[in-house]
Amino acid sequence: MRISDLSRTTGVPVASIKFYIREGLLPRGRPTAPNQADYDKEHVERLTLIRALREVAGLPVAVIGDVVAALDGAGDGSPALTTALRALAPDGADVSAAARVTVRQLIDELDWSVDEESAGYSMLEAALTALDEHWPNGYSVERLRAYADLAGRMAEIEIPEDWDPQGKATPSLVYAVLGTILYEPVILALRRLAHADRHRRLMQ
Amino acid sequence: MRISDLSRTTGVPVASIKFYIREGLLPRGRPTAPNQADYDKEHVERLTLIRALREVAGLPVAVIGDVVAALDGAGDGSPALTTALRALAPDGADVSAAARVTVRQLIDELDWSVDEESAGYSMLEAALTALDEHWPNGYSVERLRAYADLAGRMAEIEIPEDWDPQGKATPSLVYAVLGTILYEPVILALRRLAHADRHRRLMQ
Repeated sequence: MRISDLSRTTGVPVASIKFYIREGLLPRGRPTAPNQADYDKEHVERLTLIRALREVAGLPVAVIGDVVAALDGAGDGSPALTTALRALAPDGADVSAAARVTVRQLIDELDWSVDEESAGYSMLEAALTALDEHWPNGYSVERLRAYADLAGRMAEIEIPEDWDPQGKATPSLVYAVLGTILYEPVILALRRLAHADRHRRLMQ
Repeated sequence: MRISDLSRTTGVPVASIKFYIREGLLPRGRPTAPNQADYDKEHVERLTLIRALREVAGLPVAVIGDVVAALDGAGDGSPALTTALRALAPDGADVSAAARVTVRQLIDELDWSVDEESAGYSMLEAALTALDEHWPNGYSVERLRAYADLAGRMAEIEIPEDWDPQGKATPSLVYAVLGTILYEPVILALRRLAHADRHRRLMQ
């Protein structure tokens, strides 16, 4: 398809598409004539991802560059998805020693196979640091295990048994990244609705 | 305690405490001498909440005013917590007709006792609108039901059977608001860790 069709299909303006190509976020199209190129399904998918990362996750272009580089396998040798998801995680948050200890203990108890380089690892340390600062004694390892159990069930729903781990920027990888981001507000909204339902029932 | 002790205990500067009192977010202390007042546990708790709403949820002072007014029972007659949590929800997001239909259908099927005024209701509509826009056919009512089931279990962990629904700004209400906000990043981080664990296991 031509760049105008690519723009119409994805809802991304032509000028932005050209910008993403210049920045290396999107591969060039196949040249068909001077000043004309052909774009395909892969471009549509990549643009869908870039748009979601900008508009939903609110990521700066440089970070989106890290995510797509990881998906292209241009990362540091870690599996593409781990690298891509790591690029998505906020960093630089203060982490308390107590939070560090709790996260390590929790992961040990759960026997989860994750390392400290995982995106979720530093996110959890930062979240527990904030929790402790604003609500002293507001968590326990026992309570966290209950949440972790539910998170594990979510992962089972979200990542099917036959997931192809070797793929690079295959649809399954792109949608793993999209799903991570796009379902976060869905999960938080459902939790609030579940609270409302439970409050109302307990009030009756 | 004196204002300097209140400041030390909560980590909120004296000038900010005075600002919150002027803005009506925090009740005045009990006067003990000219230019001196006594503050108690209730002030500590309120300041803890204000700080979390500012620093963790990033809410503007006007919205925090709505939340605490609701907790003080100065709201529009709805139960205090519903009003407080509604003030916390982002609003003004575009909502598609399809998302509206899906949310109604989902709530019907779940037989949840929530109304459209619930914070989670509009959050879910907005989340599904974004999901659909960035990932066409990225959700199904079946998939949402699976998430809703897990959200329901979260609510059971978070809101005990003996929760006191009649309380106003009692500890249980304040901590219901704090817990709603402070546990969101914990849940999202655990989900990412669960993904990392599952990816690694499926790769073996």
